[in-house]
Amino acid sequence: VEFARIERIAALARRLPPPDAGEVLLGIGDDAAVVDVGGVPSVLCVDALVDGVHFRRDLSSPADVGWKAVAVNVSDVAAVGGTAVAAVVALHRPRDLPEADVDALYEGMAEAAAAYGLALVGGDTVTSPTLAVTVAVLGRAGPRTVTRSGARPGDVVVVAGALGAAAAALHAVGAGRTPDPAHLAAHRRPRALPATGRALAASGATAVVDVSDGLGADAGHLARGGGVDLRLDADLVAAAAADGVRAVGEGWLDLVLGGGEDQALLATVPPDRVSVAAAAVAAAGEADLRVLGRVVEAEGAEPAVWLDAPPDAGRGGPAAHGRGRRVDHLGYDHG
Amino acid sequence: VEFARIERIAALARRLPPPDAGEVLLGIGDDAAVVDVGGVPSVLCVDALVDGVHFRRDLSSPADVGWKAVAVNVSDVAAVGGTAVAAVVALHRPRDLPEADVDALYEGMAEAAAAYGLALVGGDTVTSPTLAVTVAVLGRAGPRTVTRSGARPGDVVVVAGALGAAAAALHAVGAGRTPDPAHLAAHRRPRALPATGRALAASGATAVVDVSDGLGADAGHLARGGGVDLRLDADLVAAAAADGVRAVGEGWLDLVLGGGEDQALLATVPPDRVSVAAAAVAAAGEADLRVLGRVVEAEGAEPAVWLDAPPDAGRGGPAAHGRGRRVDHLGYDHG
Repeated sequence: VEFARIERIAALARRLPPPDAGEVLLGIGDDAAVVDVGGVPSVLCVDALVDGVHFRRDLSSPADVGWKAVAVNVSDVAAVGGTAVAAVVALHRPRDLPEADVDALYEGMAEAAAAYGLALVGGDTVTSPTLAVTVAVLGRAGPRTVTRSGARPGDVVVVAGALGAAAAALHAVGAGRTPDPAHLAAHRRPRALPATGRALAASGATAVVDVSDGLGADAGHLARGGGVDLRLDADLVAAAAADGVRAVGEGWLDLVLGGGEDQALLATVPPDRVSVAAAAVAAAGEADLRVLGRVVEAEGAEPAVWLDAPPDAGRGGPAAHGRGRRVDHLGYDHG
Repeated sequence: VEFARIERIAALARRLPPPDAGEVLLGIGDDAAVVDVGGVPSVLCVDALVDGVHFRRDLSSPADVGWKAVAVNVSDVAAVGGTAVAAVVALHRPRDLPEADVDALYEGMAEAAAAYGLALVGGDTVTSPTLAVTVAVLGRAGPRTVTRSGARPGDVVVVAGALGAAAAALHAVGAGRTPDPAHLAAHRRPRALPATGRALAASGATAVVDVSDGLGADAGHLARGGGVDLRLDADLVAAAAADGVRAVGEGWLDLVLGGGEDQALLATVPPDRVSVAAAAVAAAGEADLRVLGRVVEAEGAEPAVWLDAPPDAGRGGPAAHGRGRRVDHLGYDHG
């Protein structure tokens, strides 16, 4: 649904006259937009967190929600290789939300703003039956902007950041178990990887997306963006799981593939740039870079993401297309 | 409530380390923020429209709501003298909202974007029980940024744009009458005054605010921002009413003073710049500039806005403070 709408909006945008005051360098359909403002490429993005959809008030404190509303935007800016500079917030406030909770929300936003070096510069509080926090972030584009659309056959698929922790926490809660504290922390206070995003851009990554909907779904964005297939190796994907996710038991790999909220950065890198990228990401000091697979020509009419399981994975043998399981439909649909 | 929170957030922001990547030129508490991004002053603002709070689905079409979500942000950018360049949207979508309504919302946003020369560059659709449209706009600051805080004793209070039309429409609907079509249009499709904002800034306006909460409340922002009193002349305020608002009958002046949604620009201008400002605003071609009153030293402990009624206004003679009626509490509290 979301992808189809993005296509329609993009078609609509193409019908419109170009803007008077700036040039759109990267528009609808990416993690963040890049717009020329007075000769400087600026990054702009927005993300909304809605009570009961993106957070639960019994699992996240108001300060956690404030933190997360900023961090998910910093992650979007990181994906295009930019640096977040300033944030504004629209707080949708139910009338019965205590004043202390509002203050705590702002405190959480301020903590994240301080952690990521951006300024909280304003916003709007509106009454709403549904608590929601919408944050928009303005950033400075890096010397090289990386989109979702540059993956080419031959590129290596890499990821920075562990996968599945937040999903494992929600899975445990759903099953009536106490979640691993580290997993719960990943859900409550996701960590964006801004220096990693800049390192990937500087290292020649051909495409980057932040893993917010789930590895499968977000890899699907890179596949469709580049008109290519991504083939992920199941063992390599398993190795990218956050500590303790395997302990969930059956279904743990689906948490890694479709859990979402990881705020990891998934990228494609030319083969001769992988070691450079790994060193640059290591130097950024936020996460390790792991190889997950490779980019190939699209096999079918539709670009897709395949998980190639080793022969002993017990998944019932070769699937209809090639020898893997198609995973780009896996992911949490926030839309 | 909102003003107290702004003060707390500002206090919080002062405790935080300065941002790494940009300099905040105008922060929390104004219509829009101005941030230095790579040497270029950029404008950033966000506004949320919530179903049942800022619009009613029986009065506004989805396309109207989309238009308005963009226009109110353009008005915020205009108030600081900037030019809107790009917009991103967070659409909070109830599961039962038809796909056609979502498309119409985006069409309305695209219409407003085209009308005001900005680009719709992306966004996020999230599921929510409550329909809301949150738009953030990035703009280019003008050569001179005007805040809410520069009003000085001796300045003249002026307004560009007619007042009370949207409020008159809602008043009529509330009373079970058919609203004036022009008033309903003002509620559904407010017109921002971007060229007027730039003209006011270029003419030396000392302070500007967009009239979104109501003339009284927004004049109150200028009073508190400057630490001054504003004295408005009731006859001059009456003359700034939109056509047909008087026809509402008793209470019509309160619609002008407290109705909100006018998207007019209220400004203070040094006396020797009023004719220059009037000519520049006329040349901008969007609205006439009208004098409403003047700025004086604050009389009491708290800066305030007074409506000085002529002797025959039948308002019961002099009020407690000075000879006018205090009106800065009048306005629609969206918060």
